[in-house]
Amino acid sequence: MSAAPLRIGLAGLGTVGIGVVKIVQRHADLIAARAGRPVVITAVSARDPKKNRDADLSGYAWETDPVALAKRPDVDVFVEVMGGHDGPAKAATEAAIAAGKDVVTANKALLAHHGQALALAAEAAGHVIRFEAAVAGGIPVIKALTEGLAGNKMRRVMGVMNGTCNYILTRMQSAGLPYETVFEEARQLGYLEADPNLDVGGIDAGHKLSLLSSIAFGTQVAFDAVELEGIGNVSIDDIRLADEMGYRIKLLGVAQMTGRGLEQRMTPCLVPAASPLGQLQGGTNMVVLEGDSVGQIVLRGPGAGEGPTASAVMGDVIDLARGLRLPTFGQPAATLAAAVPARSANPTPWYLRMTLLDKPGALAKIATALGDAGVSIDQMRQINSHDAEDDDAIVLFVTHKAAPADVAHAMSSFAATGVLVGAPVAIRIEEV
Amino acid sequence: MSAAPLRIGLAGLGTVGIGVVKIVQRHADLIAARAGRPVVITAVSARDPKKNRDADLSGYAWETDPVALAKRPDVDVFVEVMGGHDGPAKAATEAAIAAGKDVVTANKALLAHHGQALALAAEAAGHVIRFEAAVAGGIPVIKALTEGLAGNKMRRVMGVMNGTCNYILTRMQSAGLPYETVFEEARQLGYLEADPNLDVGGIDAGHKLSLLSSIAFGTQVAFDAVELEGIGNVSIDDIRLADEMGYRIKLLGVAQMTGRGLEQRMTPCLVPAASPLGQLQGGTNMVVLEGDSVGQIVLRGPGAGEGPTASAVMGDVIDLARGLRLPTFGQPAATLAAAVPARSANPTPWYLRMTLLDKPGALAKIATALGDAGVSIDQMRQINSHDAEDDDAIVLFVTHKAAPADVAHAMSSFAATGVLVGAPVAIRIEEV
Repeated sequence: MSAAPLRIGLAGLGTVGIGVVKIVQRHADLIAARAGRPVVITAVSARDPKKNRDADLSGYAWETDPVALAKRPDVDVFVEVMGGHDGPAKAATEAAIAAGKDVVTANKALLAHHGQALALAAEAAGHVIRFEAAVAGGIPVIKALTEGLAGNKMRRVMGVMNGTCNYILTRMQSAGLPYETVFEEARQLGYLEADPNLDVGGIDAGHKLSLLSSIAFGTQVAFDAVELEGIGNVSIDDIRLADEMGYRIKLLGVAQMTGRGLEQRMTPCLVPAASPLGQLQGGTNMVVLEGDSVGQIVLRGPGAGEGPTASAVMGDVIDLARGLRLPTFGQPAATLAAAVPARSANPTPWYLRMTLLDKPGALAKIATALGDAGVSIDQMRQINSHDAEDDDAIVLFVTHKAAPADVAHAMSSFAATGVLVGAPVAIRIEEV
Repeated sequence: MSAAPLRIGLAGLGTVGIGVVKIVQRHADLIAARAGRPVVITAVSARDPKKNRDADLSGYAWETDPVALAKRPDVDVFVEVMGGHDGPAKAATEAAIAAGKDVVTANKALLAHHGQALALAAEAAGHVIRFEAAVAGGIPVIKALTEGLAGNKMRRVMGVMNGTCNYILTRMQSAGLPYETVFEEARQLGYLEADPNLDVGGIDAGHKLSLLSSIAFGTQVAFDAVELEGIGNVSIDDIRLADEMGYRIKLLGVAQMTGRGLEQRMTPCLVPAASPLGQLQGGTNMVVLEGDSVGQIVLRGPGAGEGPTASAVMGDVIDLARGLRLPTFGQPAATLAAAVPARSANPTPWYLRMTLLDKPGALAKIATALGDAGVSIDQMRQINSHDAEDDDAIVLFVTHKAAPADVAHAMSSFAATGVLVGAPVAIRIEEV
């Protein structure tokens, strides 16, 4: 092996960073054989050099400042696994690009917010940013979409891409526990981000969807245009009622280019329990890629964790060692079109759940409001729940196919009826 | 777009070739944007230039001899979608390499038989052979394994990779029809190769498995070492009995590196009906990739057809247009180890079906033979079937976990009992 080694500067020594260290150390020979040259770590950075970590770091130079790491002359590739969309991660990534390094990052927040600017800077400097680990953990979905399916006009990209949300929803389902209880379990298991809203608010998954959209449709990342709804309003009643009708509730992302513009949404949806998405358990991720020639490709795998995320980082690093280089979003950032956001408009059935006051004519008023908005009712059920007080009734509607705007209109008109307790819940039913 | 176009010479104008023509013509702008340069077809070859084809070929030079096509100076990449492991496909591929072209091929048979020699020749000449379309149709599994998971020591590769066999087995299951009837249906639908044994004998799927093995384990392609068993002995009784026990029968490939050497088998297996593999319908393929860091990645998609296969071909072509080049099997062919074949040895439960003569003590003799071979019985059932004549009894055993060698030993000892009608059937039960 005579070729010069590829030298990694590794910023971040949390779970993923230590995973990268382990792979580089354990598989030095295997990687050298595949990459055609050795891949080595020369320097690392983390806030606390004294912290006890599950790996031998004694052979590496230490930097406490990731910006200093990014500028080191003995670093070819800056690997950023710190996280955070501003602050040190952004500063260090910018410094790495300015210093003429390639970048491999697991940071979806950074790219969702600053991907276009960073890609432009990297491409102007003749360098690349790769981010397989930022989306769907160990699943090589960025590669599949950017390279494997590059001959396709993409029709649609979908996915369950936040393992924590899927853990919470499947645990509520299997154990019959309310959201708050399972949320607390997830926190204690360390599954939640420091700001849990990144997970349960759908933000993290929305970041990922916006990155896939950019590649699929040749548009600049438009995270702000993602219709975002978290899982915080999904109740155990919803889970149970969906189950009885043969559905599961998933935090599902859908992006598609329409004649009106780019639709991107990350929202809870009912999907058939027997479908591949419906059967997805725990922290597993699934991404569905639909292209005009290939039809539908489904990728499933672990969405997070030390090994899977480090595997994705190393896939990118080995690409660079092999000389495989391409623009961040599959085509030069300067050629990406500005996304024209469009609200989702496809009519689907909807699941509506609300609590009605025990008043004569309450149900009729709601039914009338639905009819006035052009939303027709397929099924209606009144259910008993410990969540309903006194004689209030929880009522469930399943609608015929209805446009999202019509459903939103109906929902907003309910308030004027004066018969609702609390806010109604509307969840799209996707027959995926 | 000032960069020079990448020029394709397309050998073969069957379903896949025409699919490639359509993509190149329909998505010229999209591909140029992604590849950073135009991708054009300059010349094509097929046996009959006069045949009516579903595409406008008027802009391309014609060669009736693919070898002449391969040598043309206006061709950068020789795309081989003719098929056949010898004859014109091999001659033309060799000619292309000798003439200094890169090669993109959909030909699993060619690579399963001659992949090592062709890869050595290409690499000696500084050129590459890519073959995404050769395995699992539109699923970008070669890319996922070679590049995306390159940081992993692979543990196991599995898959259902022949759509025709899966069509036959799922159709037998859903319609309750015998093998012969569904085989004939498949023939009339054009699903079968000219030599149907390539499909139903497991040979085509075995070719694909041997290519995945080479990449996964860094070994020279060893198709001859694949334990191969087709689906011709799977009866409707087997399908029905498996169903009653909660299983489906699939032609499943498994490759893994063990301390004894490389195991590769492509055989019918019982898999849980509710598992992703068990739920795979019709011509869909599924590949499971297991690595030490990533865990399990599952890829599902269309295994054949014009669009999916052409999508895979174009993925490779666009890689080349982008300058993404790597060795055929992920590392230089000269560094691939010779595979040391090992018979599969993992104990699993087995499904055994046989027809016994209506003689006293017949069952006892079989049970004794099983016991003598060290195979213990978990369940036994006698069933009625229109396939059994007179008073002969069809008997089904499900064994406890037993080593394949012990089961084979038991099976071979049955003959001496003199109580069997015809050949017994043994199918492995995989709890995947």
